[in-house]
This record gives sequence, structure tokens and C-alpha cells, in this order.
Amino acid sequence: MLVYKAPTKDFLFILNDLLKVQELKGVEGFESLTPEFCQEVLYPAARFHEEVLFPVGIAGDRHGAHLVDGKVLTPPGYKEAWKQYCASGWLQLSMPEELGGAGLPSIMASIIGEMRITTAHSLAMYGSFCLSAARMLNSLAPEWIRTHVVPNLATGQWTATMCLTESHCGTDLKQIRTTAVPQPDGSYAIHGSKIFISGGDHDLTDNIIHLVLAKIPDADGKVGARLDEVNVFMVSKHKIDLQTGELLEKNACHVSSIEHKMGIEGSATCVLNFDGAQAWHIGSTSGGVKRNSMLPMFLMMNYARLSTALSGVGYAEISAQNALFYAKERRSGKTPIFSSGDQSIADPIINHPDIRRNIMAAQSFAEGGRATALRVAVWQAQAESDQISAEERRRLKDMVDLFTPVMKAYFTDKGFDCASDCLQVFGGHGYTKDYGIEQVVRNARIGKIYEGANGIQAIDLLRRKLPDNDWRAFDYFFQTIHTFIGQYCVSGQADQGLLGRFVAAVTLLQNTVEEIRQESQQGAGVLPHLAVAYDLLHAFGIIVVAWNWLEIHQLLQEKANAVELTPFENRKVILACFWVEYELPLVHALCQRIQQGTPSVLKLPPEALDVE
Amino acid sequence: MLVYKAPTKDFLFILNDLLKVQELKGVEGFESLTPEFCQEVLYPAARFHEEVLFPVGIAGDRHGAHLVDGKVLTPPGYKEAWKQYCASGWLQLSMPEELGGAGLPSIMASIIGEMRITTAHSLAMYGSFCLSAARMLNSLAPEWIRTHVVPNLATGQWTATMCLTESHCGTDLKQIRTTAVPQPDGSYAIHGSKIFISGGDHDLTDNIIHLVLAKIPDADGKVGARLDEVNVFMVSKHKIDLQTGELLEKNACHVSSIEHKMGIEGSATCVLNFDGAQAWHIGSTSGGVKRNSMLPMFLMMNYARLSTALSGVGYAEISAQNALFYAKERRSGKTPIFSSGDQSIADPIINHPDIRRNIMAAQSFAEGGRATALRVAVWQAQAESDQISAEERRRLKDMVDLFTPVMKAYFTDKGFDCASDCLQVFGGHGYTKDYGIEQVVRNARIGKIYEGANGIQAIDLLRRKLPDNDWRAFDYFFQTIHTFIGQYCVSGQADQGLLGRFVAAVTLLQNTVEEIRQESQQGAGVLPHLAVAYDLLHAFGIIVVAWNWLEIHQLLQEKANAVELTPFENRKVILACFWVEYELPLVHALCQRIQQGTPSVLKLPPEALDVE
Repeated sequence: MLVYKAPTKDFLFILNDLLKVQELKGVEGFESLTPEFCQEVLYPAARFHEEVLFPVGIAGDRHGAHLVDGKVLTPPGYKEAWKQYCASGWLQLSMPEELGGAGLPSIMASIIGEMRITTAHSLAMYGSFCLSAARMLNSLAPEWIRTHVVPNLATGQWTATMCLTESHCGTDLKQIRTTAVPQPDGSYAIHGSKIFISGGDHDLTDNIIHLVLAKIPDADGKVGARLDEVNVFMVSKHKIDLQTGELLEKNACHVSSIEHKMGIEGSATCVLNFDGAQAWHIGSTSGGVKRNSMLPMFLMMNYARLSTALSGVGYAEISAQNALFYAKERRSGKTPIFSSGDQSIADPIINHPDIRRNIMAAQSFAEGGRATALRVAVWQAQAESDQISAEERRRLKDMVDLFTPVMKAYFTDKGFDCASDCLQVFGGHGYTKDYGIEQVVRNARIGKIYEGANGIQAIDLLRRKLPDNDWRAFDYFFQTIHTFIGQYCVSGQADQGLLGRFVAAVTLLQNTVEEIRQESQQGAGVLPHLAVAYDLLHAFGIIVVAWNWLEIHQLLQEKANAVELTPFENRKVILACFWVEYELPLVHALCQRIQQGTPSVLKLPPEALDVE
Repeated sequence: MLVYKAPTKDFLFILNDLLKVQELKGVEGFESLTPEFCQEVLYPAARFHEEVLFPVGIAGDRHGAHLVDGKVLTPPGYKEAWKQYCASGWLQLSMPEELGGAGLPSIMASIIGEMRITTAHSLAMYGSFCLSAARMLNSLAPEWIRTHVVPNLATGQWTATMCLTESHCGTDLKQIRTTAVPQPDGSYAIHGSKIFISGGDHDLTDNIIHLVLAKIPDADGKVGARLDEVNVFMVSKHKIDLQTGELLEKNACHVSSIEHKMGIEGSATCVLNFDGAQAWHIGSTSGGVKRNSMLPMFLMMNYARLSTALSGVGYAEISAQNALFYAKERRSGKTPIFSSGDQSIADPIINHPDIRRNIMAAQSFAEGGRATALRVAVWQAQAESDQISAEERRRLKDMVDLFTPVMKAYFTDKGFDCASDCLQVFGGHGYTKDYGIEQVVRNARIGKIYEGANGIQAIDLLRRKLPDNDWRAFDYFFQTIHTFIGQYCVSGQADQGLLGRFVAAVTLLQNTVEEIRQESQQGAGVLPHLAVAYDLLHAFGIIVVAWNWLEIHQLLQEKANAVELTPFENRKVILACFWVEYELPLVHALCQRIQQGTPSVLKLPPEALDVE
């Protein structure tokens, strides 16, 4: 059976030692995040996730969600766990106090989010959009929604969904066919069918708020194929009395089936049919077609990609923990390190270097990735703070925008790979359901797909995040890295081996992107490089984690001059070295691919890709 | 729903054009493998696998095997399909005629094996060991077994299992606790419990022959912890009348449970308990403890690793076919190549470079890997031929021995990665069970584990296959590659770009291994490099496939001087380029890792790898 211990010490190390959030200026609430306070918050949160959520999460995936008589029944224990979770306050830790939250900086919500998705991914899916929908509606929706809907979402009394995908289109929202026809009372009637709606129905709460993408037909009743025709509408599972907020009869929206999936089987992925469902337009008071009509959706998804990135971290974490637990118990053969002298007794497999490699790779990614993601969470908060200069805010926002696709894709790729590599540690036992690690692999696989498939993230990086604003984010990024390198050098703490390898890899990536930039500015654009966009994203991913590991390494080297490092800190130093030794070489291969290109990808017409 | 078309054209291309098997000297039967004959065999075989086996295979994994009243019930259709399969003769194509087969060279069995495992992996598992057990018993077992058991196995009337693993030990067979106590009648009584026995029970045939590893206790009834105490015993599910061959009462061997697994759910993976089961010692007439006592097992497993390697090829093949099928239908956005001019219609996603990259990577591996594996199948046959000089046989055997762990591990790693990357092409649809690709990913995962986990293969390469006989195989290997490079150069057909990159990668790998060799010969041995053994194996894997792609490239360039290439051949040229462009850069990263080492892996004592 799976084990899980929340990485609380690591959260505290990153918050207090690495990022020193308490000392950061410009964001309300950071000053309260003292080491003592963070401990007071995180230790009980960890216990709750370990002891309450985790067992329910594991059992839930085995049981699965079921559609019975047109209603989704969640796995046993989900309803109670959800109520407990909302009551515990962990969900709303970073919601504003006026919306019923604790008002802590959002980095704390990110931390809780990693624990939540790692312990009970499927259950967490039902609540994915409560808070972001509450925030979005609170700023964009009419008064009656702010009064009667927002508080219920903010406390998890109700949940919310995002209804984007239709069976024929996902990423390409231009193709949406769902329509929203204006009604005399100011509402709209939604017709259409949406798929892949996580938590589209369930029995956890009395009501569900669907945020639905649809097009308003023209005077002839037709819809076009333009992206700016797409608008956001709110459909409540039960209609709502606008005056009192009372829930009325069921809306014309029903779940027709749920998907059978590779993993996260406790989460109901629904097909939702809207048969003239009553809906309310969100984001403008006029019902017309307008630009920026999807702003409400983007506001909701703002934090989703960071949270998906952290799911990759969480999956690496739990995989490493379980593989390590097994590898310390399981014995096979004699090992070249830390072997017992007794030749008649087999050694624990943790001392076989290849087993260690798999486990340390997962640990090194989990902890380096976590440090990276939480640093970005700080930037996100700072980029929204009016106490910070506009120029600095712009720089931070650029960095967040650049890091977002990199982390979403690279971290979920690594989360899945680490899970599969840790399964390998169990040998045949890993392939059976007994130890639970195979479920981790299956669950982790979804991260590469949802919230924008990873290939789309790579295109986003190459086509938008890098070249936008005359490659400003690119410049900021390398300036930031070089500033760190300079500080690392003058600190006198730099390990020359690590530093040299890092500088070589950074320089190579910078030169590689610089070539693309120059070529694109000479008129070719970035399109010729689309076939290597994924490689580019991975190279950035390796570098950003390496940077964060070197920040940690520098910090601990400085400390080591004054005091003896703790075992926790010594281990960090070794994991930093591991990342540099093991992952940085890949940057050279990826840059070689990018520089030389893969022209063969573009040569054959589609029919010629088939044999015959 | 999944589609599958057997890659018959590719099989024929490899047999007749690339390897020119008909012209090869020294192996009986090769001369019969004319293009016409190969077509006559492979087209109907393909149709049988596509039309009969494939539907049963897919449905079987959804239904799963079940243990009911102590007996394993296989999925619906398995029993009939198995009977049809045995009757069709595809299983026994390469068995000697005196054992009821068609006596074709074993390369044909390898080809059929790829189709069988790709279309019905779970069903194929029940028959994995029939033929190898028949061959082994035919050469090592007493007369009554050769008369009454071998023919039943050779025709698939009965099946066979290999019973190695116990719950506390897999790879480390020294730890085996199962005992075989000599009985007055010359039989042994087996006591113990074995796990992970594929096809340990089923309803496909009347009887099952278990080959069981066990230790003979000493005079005090004790067993030791030495590998050479392990012997091989034959246990028949039903006892056999030694005179008549009639099946008698059930033996004291029963299945106590079957595993619930990540994939291949149609295959029953059994826990088998032996409670004094009647058994017969195989491999020697005396019952004593002796060296080479596991020879019978090694004979049986001789071909198993090549067949597992080909399963990786098959999984890449079927994944690429399905992803391509989907990507040609599915439309999203506008593409930079082969786009329709109509801006209002989305293009098929096959023309998005990142989608193509995933699919072509799978195609390029499947076809390059297949060429590599079938070349090794030729070497295997030649290495066993007494018409070939002893020196050449030794060289061939060295090459087979070197390629075996490389292909088993690298090919199954690639098979799984390609399957997962092709799932990605389907977006969210890939994660649901609708298209079947997620089942392919789950099934493909087992290949990395069974027949010796891939980490073990890497250790085998580094510790044995390379250094054995004073690094003779290593020398042969690079001599062979350099001979090809020389021929390629003087042929005048070499694409300088491809050649240059190949030579650079080969030279780098050779120098890297040469450093290890010199260091090891100076007394350090190879143990210091265990942490990078996996990288070494992957570097070899990329190079051997690249070599085979360049052989194909050269062949087709020569042909192109005389005639226009067919679309099939043009596509091959592009896939050859793809492998060089896309995969060879990784050799540089892997060699960098190997040369620089990953010393951090070895530093922390096991307890320090945990946090706290």
C-alpha cells in the first residue's frame, strides 16, 4: 500500500531559508510568514492530508465514480472528506478574508495544492475551480451573483466547472458549436454538448456552477468560426432565485455519460448536454460579440497551470518516497556501496547504483521543481502588487509568463517519468496493484494532457512567450540567470565544477535561442523551429531547476562555513550535485537538436507518412 | 477503437532487401526465403493476426482473467483463438519438422512473434514457453518426457511456464527457498510458493508443464544460499503415466491467487503453491547438486529476450499507426506545412510539427529497431550453424550476447515511451479508454520489467557482456561498425551530413567505453561505473539502431541511382534522417554523463536518502 509523508520540512526550507518570504517587500501578508507561523500552518495541514485525505483518495480511485440514473455517485468517503476539507479551511487558506478565507499569500495555497493533488487527485478535481470561479465572478459578475453565488463557491459549499471542450475541438476554440441565444429576461439559452468536464456532476454539494464557452448566434441564427465570438456564460445546475439565492428546479443541463479513463478514476469526467439551459453572460453587460470575451476564462485559468506543474512535483515526491521505502526493505544480491560484510545475506537494493539513480532523480526533480514553482508563486504575487514599481512588476510578469508553459509541460513530463522510473524499482511488484505505485503512474499521466497539452505549451513558449514584446522576457530571463551566476562567483562559495557546467549549459541555451531570435527577426519568424519547440521547452525546464538547485547549493555552502550542516541540508547539497551531473548534459543534446533542426519532420505530405 | 495493420511490407523489405536472407550462407532454410516464399508466408499470417487474434486480444484485456473456484478462467474467445492459432501453424513456423513445425529459420518465428505480441499480448503470454520448453526438454529430458510431453508442447496442445520468482526474491535466485526432496521412485517432491507465474493456470489446454527452480536439501534437510544449488524440475499440472502418457490425477500444485495488474489483464499472473508436487529433475541423471544446474532455464530463455525486444518494436508500431490514423482525421488550428488555403477550416493535426515528431519518432524506432532485431535473429541462427567457421561463430555469438541486453532494455524503454508519446497525440481522448491507446501504454509497461528488469540488463552489459573475454565483444562491435562506415564512405552514396554525425557519435561512444576499459584494466574494474550503466546501454541502443538506419539509407541511395524510389522507400530515407537528427544528439549527452560520472549517487548512506 502507498505511503505518503507531506514534505513539510522542504516547504519550510523553501519558504523561510531559500525564498525568505518573510523578508520580501511589497506583498501583503508575506511579513506574517515567519518560520514559526509557517510551521503552525503547515504541520497540521500536512497531518490532515496524510491522515484524512490520503486514505480516501487511494480508495476512491479503486472504486471509481459511477453514473447511476443520470447522476454521478462519487466514491465512498468523498462527500464526508470534502465537507471536512472545506471546514478545515485548508482549501480557502489564501482566499480573501471577505470571501471567507484566511487571506494568506497565495504561495500557501500552492503548497496546500501540492499536498491535495498528491494525496487525493481525483477528489481535488471536483474542487479545482471553486476558488478561481469565486474570484473571477466576484470581479466580473453582476451583484446578484456576487451575493448569492460567490460565497457558496468561496467556501466550497458549491463547486464550479470550466466547460470548454467539445467532441470535435479542444485547443482550437474557434470551432466551438455550442450556442447561447439571448432571452427576453436577459438570460441566455445554451444549446450544445461539452465533453471532458471534470466534476460536471457529483454528489458532494447541492449545486454546481458551470462556466461555459459558447457563441451568440447572429440575426440569422448562425455562428461563425472566429475566436472572438466565443463568450463565457454561467449555468447553474439548479436555477437560482435572483432575489433570495434559493436553489430552484434543475436547469436543462444533464450528464449523459462519464469517461472510463487510464487513471484518476475517482474523478467523474462528464459529457454535459445543455438543452436550452438558462445561462448568464459573464464579463460584460451587453450581450454583443466582443473582443477579450474570454477574459473570465483566462482569469480562472491563471493559477491552474502552476498548480498542474506542482502536481508533477507531487507525483515525483510520492513516487520517490514509496520507491525508497521499498528499496530499503527489499534485498537482492550484493551491492558495491554500503554493503554488509556478510556474503550470505543479500543487501537492500537501495545500495544498487541504478536503483538509487531512479530514486534520486525523482527526489532531485521534486525538490528542485518545488523550489522553482514556489519562487514563481512569489513572483506572481509580487507582479500583482501595487507596492512594487511598474517596471519591476512588468519584469516579474514576463518571468511568470515565460515560466508558466515551461513548468506546466516540463514538470508534468518529469512527474510522469519519475513515477514510471520509481515503479521500476519495485520490479514485477510495481506492475501489480498491490503497492499502489502503478496507480500513481496512471494518475500522473493526465498532467501532460490537461490544462493545455504539453505540445501546446511548447508552441506557446516558442511562438508567444519568448518573442512577445521584442523578446523582452527572454532578455529578462538570461539577465536574471547571469546576475545569479555573478553573485555565485563573487560569493566565493561556488563549487567550480557545478558552476562551470551550469555556465556552459546556460550559455549554450542562450546562444541557441539567440540564433532563433536573429533568424526570426530577419523575417523568417519562429515557425521553422516548431519541430524543436518541445526540445527548447525541456532545455529551459532543466536550466530553471538547475538554477534553483544552485541557489540552494550556494545558500548551504555559505551556511556550512559557519555551522555544521544538518543531515537534511547535507542531503540537499548532494541532490543539487545530482541535478547538475545527471540532467544538465541533456541540455547539450537538446540544443544540438535545436541548432541542427529536424528537417525530416516537415518533408513528407501526410499521406506519405503511412506505409502504402 | 484500436486499428492494426501488420507491417508486412517492412518485414519483407528487411528480409529480402536489407538482410538478403536468401543469399546468406551457412544456415539451413535461408535459401528457401525467396521474396515470393516470404510473401506467401507473411501475408496470410498478417491477415490471421489482424482479423482473428487482434479482436480477441483487445476484448480480452478489457474482460481480464479471473480466478473462480481455484481455477483460472481466461477471457471469452481465448480458448477458441488459441486452438485456431495452434492449428494455423503460425506458432510452430520455426519448430523442427520432427516436432510438428514447418522448420523455417527462426527469423520467421521472430516476425510472427512481433505480430502475436502486438495483437494479443495477454493471450500470447500463455504460450510463451511452449516451444522453448519443447526444445529444451527434447534435448535434456529422459525418454518418456521426450515421447509424452515434448510433442504436446511443440504443438501447443499443452503450455509451459517458468517458475522462478518467489515473493522475497526475483533476480537474486540464490535466495530461493522452494525445495525438491528426492523420492524413492526417482521423482522429487516440490514444496514452496512461486509468484508472477504467467499462465500458471488457465482453461486453454488440458495440461500445463511447469519448469520450477528449486533447491535439493542436504542430508539435514537444509538448503543453502548458493546459486549452484538451484536446479530445474518439471511439474505437470496433471500427473502423467510414464508408460502411456495418459493424464492422471491433478498434481499437488494449485493457484492460490492471480495478480491485479496495470495492464495485460487477459494474462493470468499466478501465485502457484507446490505442496509436495511430484516433479522430475531436468538436466542431469543424478539428483545431486551441480554446477550449470540452471542450464535448462538458460536454454529456454535464450530467445525470450529477443522476443521481448520485438514487443517494444510492436508497441511502437501499433502506437504510431493509431496516432497517425487519428492525426489525419482530427483537425485543430492552421498548420505551417501542407495547410489548406482556406482559413475558415482547421487543418488535420498531422501537419503540426510537434504531432509529427511524436509519430515519426515511433515510426523511426519501430522500423529501425525491427531491422536491428531481425539482423540479430540472423546472427543467432548463424552462430548456431556448423557450416560456419568457429571463429566467425564466436564473433556472431559475441555480437548476439552484446546486443541482447541492449535490445531487451532499450527497445522496451522506447516501446513504452513511444506508446505514451503517441497517446499524447490524442489529447484528452487518449486518456480515455475509447481509443484503446491507453491500454497499449499500460501493456507496454511490462516489457521494461519482465525477462530481467532493464536496470539488470544495463548491469549485465557493463559487468559481463562488455568486459568478458578481455573485452572481445566490444572490439568486435566497433570493428563491425567501422567496417560499415568504411564501406559506406567508399560506396560514394553516403550522405555526408548523416555520415559525419554518425561517425562523431560512434567515435564518442567508443572512446568513452575505451576509457572505462582502460580504467578497469588498471585494477578498478567496472564497478565505479554502475551508476551510469543505464546511460551506456541507451547510448549503445541509439547507435545500433542508427547503424541499421544508415544501412537502409545506403541501400536506398544506391537504388535511387538506378530507378526512382517508391513512396515506401522514400519514406524510409526520411525516417533514416529522422533517427540521425533526433536520436543521435542524445549519445553526446549520455557519453557526457558517463565520462563525468554521477558521483552524487554513491555518497549518501541509505538512511540519509530519507528526509529526517
